[in-house]
Amino acid sequence: MRALQSYLPVFSWIGQYSRQALSRDLLAAAIVTIMLIPQSLAYALLAGLPAQVGLYASIVPLAVYALFGTSRTLSVGPVAVASLMSATALGEVAAQGTTDYLLAAAVLATLSGAFLALLGILRLGFLANFLSHPVISGFITASGLLIAFSQLKHLFGVSAGGHNLPQIIGSLVSHLHHINVYALVTGSAVIAFLYWSRGGAGRLLQRLSVPAHTAGLLSKAAPVVGVIATIIVAIAFNFEGKQVALVGAIPSGLPSLHLPHFSWDLVRALTVPAIMISIIGYVESVSVGKTLAAKRRQKIDVNQELIGLGAANIGSGLSGAFPVTGGFSRSVVNFDAGAETQLASVFTAVGIALASVFLTPFLYYLPKATLAATIVVAVLSLVDFSILRKTWRFSKSDFLAVTITIAVTLLFGVEAGVSCGVAASIALFLYRTSRPHIAEVGLVEGTEHFRNVKRHEVVTDPQILTIRVDESLMFSNAGYLEDRVYGDLAANRRVKHVILMCSAINEIDWSALEVLEAINERLAEQGMQLHLSEVKGPVMDRLQSTGFLQHLSGKVYLSQYRAFVDNRSTDTAQTVAA
Amino acid sequence: MRALQSYLPVFSWIGQYSRQALSRDLLAAAIVTIMLIPQSLAYALLAGLPAQVGLYASIVPLAVYALFGTSRTLSVGPVAVASLMSATALGEVAAQGTTDYLLAAAVLATLSGAFLALLGILRLGFLANFLSHPVISGFITASGLLIAFSQLKHLFGVSAGGHNLPQIIGSLVSHLHHINVYALVTGSAVIAFLYWSRGGAGRLLQRLSVPAHTAGLLSKAAPVVGVIATIIVAIAFNFEGKQVALVGAIPSGLPSLHLPHFSWDLVRALTVPAIMISIIGYVESVSVGKTLAAKRRQKIDVNQELIGLGAANIGSGLSGAFPVTGGFSRSVVNFDAGAETQLASVFTAVGIALASVFLTPFLYYLPKATLAATIVVAVLSLVDFSILRKTWRFSKSDFLAVTITIAVTLLFGVEAGVSCGVAASIALFLYRTSRPHIAEVGLVEGTEHFRNVKRHEVVTDPQILTIRVDESLMFSNAGYLEDRVYGDLAANRRVKHVILMCSAINEIDWSALEVLEAINERLAEQGMQLHLSEVKGPVMDRLQSTGFLQHLSGKVYLSQYRAFVDNRSTDTAQTVAA
Repeated sequence: MRALQSYLPVFSWIGQYSRQALSRDLLAAAIVTIMLIPQSLAYALLAGLPAQVGLYASIVPLAVYALFGTSRTLSVGPVAVASLMSATALGEVAAQGTTDYLLAAAVLATLSGAFLALLGILRLGFLANFLSHPVISGFITASGLLIAFSQLKHLFGVSAGGHNLPQIIGSLVSHLHHINVYALVTGSAVIAFLYWSRGGAGRLLQRLSVPAHTAGLLSKAAPVVGVIATIIVAIAFNFEGKQVALVGAIPSGLPSLHLPHFSWDLVRALTVPAIMISIIGYVESVSVGKTLAAKRRQKIDVNQELIGLGAANIGSGLSGAFPVTGGFSRSVVNFDAGAETQLASVFTAVGIALASVFLTPFLYYLPKATLAATIVVAVLSLVDFSILRKTWRFSKSDFLAVTITIAVTLLFGVEAGVSCGVAASIALFLYRTSRPHIAEVGLVEGTEHFRNVKRHEVVTDPQILTIRVDESLMFSNAGYLEDRVYGDLAANRRVKHVILMCSAINEIDWSALEVLEAINERLAEQGMQLHLSEVKGPVMDRLQSTGFLQHLSGKVYLSQYRAFVDNRSTDTAQTVAA
Repeated sequence: MRALQSYLPVFSWIGQYSRQALSRDLLAAAIVTIMLIPQSLAYALLAGLPAQVGLYASIVPLAVYALFGTSRTLSVGPVAVASLMSATALGEVAAQGTTDYLLAAAVLATLSGAFLALLGILRLGFLANFLSHPVISGFITASGLLIAFSQLKHLFGVSAGGHNLPQIIGSLVSHLHHINVYALVTGSAVIAFLYWSRGGAGRLLQRLSVPAHTAGLLSKAAPVVGVIATIIVAIAFNFEGKQVALVGAIPSGLPSLHLPHFSWDLVRALTVPAIMISIIGYVESVSVGKTLAAKRRQKIDVNQELIGLGAANIGSGLSGAFPVTGGFSRSVVNFDAGAETQLASVFTAVGIALASVFLTPFLYYLPKATLAATIVVAVLSLVDFSILRKTWRFSKSDFLAVTITIAVTLLFGVEAGVSCGVAASIALFLYRTSRPHIAEVGLVEGTEHFRNVKRHEVVTDPQILTIRVDESLMFSNAGYLEDRVYGDLAANRRVKHVILMCSAINEIDWSALEVLEAINERLAEQGMQLHLSEVKGPVMDRLQSTGFLQHLSGKVYLSQYRAFVDNRSTDTAQTVAA
């Protein structure tokens, strides 16, 4: 039973499911369904896919995640950034509007799901940690901007393209003389209405005696109000005759489940984008899941989450849809509306299924500008350049990573942006650990403490060089230590004893061991001894597994004080002023 | 003057150059020249180039390095691994024996030089640290094997190819019926002679009353003896008429210096290989340079070394030759023969120049099998699988990195091997730092020390959770800490105070700060306080630059003991046995 619960977390709560939880889940599902319909349509548009595909991506994946996922309240489905990344990837292999494009989308979702599930089965969830937070913030901010700009074509009613800012702006400018005033007015009005709904609608409802919490939830239905209103306007003003882009005919019904018919060439072309979309989607989703779980003192399992999201994406691929993940705004609404378990998501899936059977005929007249407007308002809330200011004050290397990510994403597109961001994070991390803080230390008189000779008034001995390394010794910094020791020795030719104070060394690798051996040998050739002090247990264990300690010219001391006193030449001791 | 010395290190010693140093440098140059002639010819053969190109690579580069390099005794020129890597890279863009192949070699050397010089000017020498020692050992061992196998075709006198072990063996086997007995006998005899010369020749010379040191140096001339002997044999037995592959006609004279006429396509195709060859060559060269410099308490400057090697390679490119670097065996001979300064290298360059003017006609009858034999003997001394056993005992992750490097190099070739090795080192490093040692600690009774509750008998308080993280807090491990804290709290619901003992935290980045903020906020929501203790100076400085300390629900304590005593609920204290 325990094993079953760990692979199908649904069994950990379904046994204790109460009537009260049912009513709360049903309410949450109703609200999320209303919110999800326009979102699904809009993100399908963003991914360059027909509107019904957005609905398909919001049925099976939700039910599958409910079975395999560990978050009780995460709401899975299409999200903005993954949709933009999908559009970029699919644009490389097929033209929008073709069946090849639809097929590629399903293959992309399936690959992405398979990759996530594989990571989960191999318990490699920790890999997601290598996206540093500033890089993610920068990437989401830049993607939000890119998405907003990419929607301007729908707002202006022109056909333009591009996968990065210069392309998008260039293409827009060259099409600007074809601007469609009806589309522009509709879109602008929806944007204005949505911004107003965030504050004004809540206040209005409260004045009508609706309780604050309910008013807040009701205001999330604003996009649906916008959809209905603009459908009516489009019919009344005959938008169809005025060349306003409409959603058009959508087949009614449910997606048929089948494995997409793929070629290996397609798989090869989509593998790298699928991995990137998976990782970004996973990181986004897990951070939402963790936040919500912690609020109710629940826990999520990062590796099982990979399996849950992987299964959801495979479900999306089998439905002929595109990559999905846990969405932030949607999950928060689900949580605030009182969802207790993943049954809320199952009910939401039923709601979306009903919509795709019965509501699709009504969407014929929906202007694309309305969907573009809901996207713009949603993604602009993701844009937050304050990370630049914050990291600038905190650490220049974090600042550099985020700046590179934002600049590359805007100028070269999402894939280049993520890649450079990850590479920059890792490179800066390695750079930092490659130049650890190394201090020459001396004895604080009257104590057994040792401090940096540059900062404190301490006692040193001209025949003893004591060096403290404030970092684990690894291949990335072993050469730096070697240079430092030889440099110090070249500057002070009276030294007879070199003591390496190891109190901050948590780990040592083979490269560092070789450097220590080289230093030991070099010192011995010149009649000097190398001592170690305050070596931590695990490091000592590791050194003992080699012949290093047998060849060590000096000794290993438990305390630095002992090491200093034992090797001190009392007649030559001197005090160094800071 | 100081600035001039740092850019042209030659000026730091040329002023004090003595007559005694001159005579030592001349002697060393004579010995190295004799050693370098067969090496140059052999490594040109290994790189797939005509023999004279090997000599060209040993003239200008030596003189240029003498001007810009910081090692007094490093001997620059063609080396085995870089030659093999060059052959692989050049084989991708041109066919051996064509002028395109020659041109590509010169472009490769120039690119490689430009890349090294750029790294040096940008002071990025630290990047070479990211090749961990086990990866380098594994790579050199595997390359040595690959090179030895690649020379079998010359020993068997057949024409075969291949860039990895399966290809080479497959190609050899399919050509084996064309085996040339004269080539095989010649090659085998030279191999046997060279192995004998390592020990037996020295002993023989000593018995003839030659001093041990001189005998050792003289035995380095064994390859030249092999060359001369096999030339005589080839003439005597008419090898030319017996289809034995000979070096053939070599143009006499010096290389003409000119910038290779390159196309951008060629530059694009060769950039990545040039970078790899540069890095491997640089790492090899610097490790030789450091070893020799330390023996005489001299220093080398890693960034200036990049400039020196960069200039040498540009010099090689301008000479129409191929990538060069500091060679291990050659430099040791130079050092042992008493070379004092880089003038020894300048004299060596003059020696090689004289050889390429006057000796080339005599090389016509030199069997290729002789050169192959000298290569095989030289590279088999590089092969050392003991690194596998050593790292297995020391650290499984180092073992994994070296195993991957060796396997990939043998099976897929040198470029894939280096790439995978670097990637594996970095990935394993990140993996290790992503799972730092985290211990719950308690008070050792009667002291102010805190130790792991799992290893020691310590006092804890059920309302206090004290966690010590033995690693800097970075994006790669911040999520792990978060999971650990929430996990511990979920298991112990009486906790009111969480103390993070920061004595081993040397650094903190923005991602970790965000995690600390999230933990602080989460704890505050649930009525708990987060305290920090023993925060290091630089970490404290950084925390103070943000609003974190103002929002901290608890306090920052200088000592863990103070933190524990201040928050202790004396009535509930309990002792936990280890």
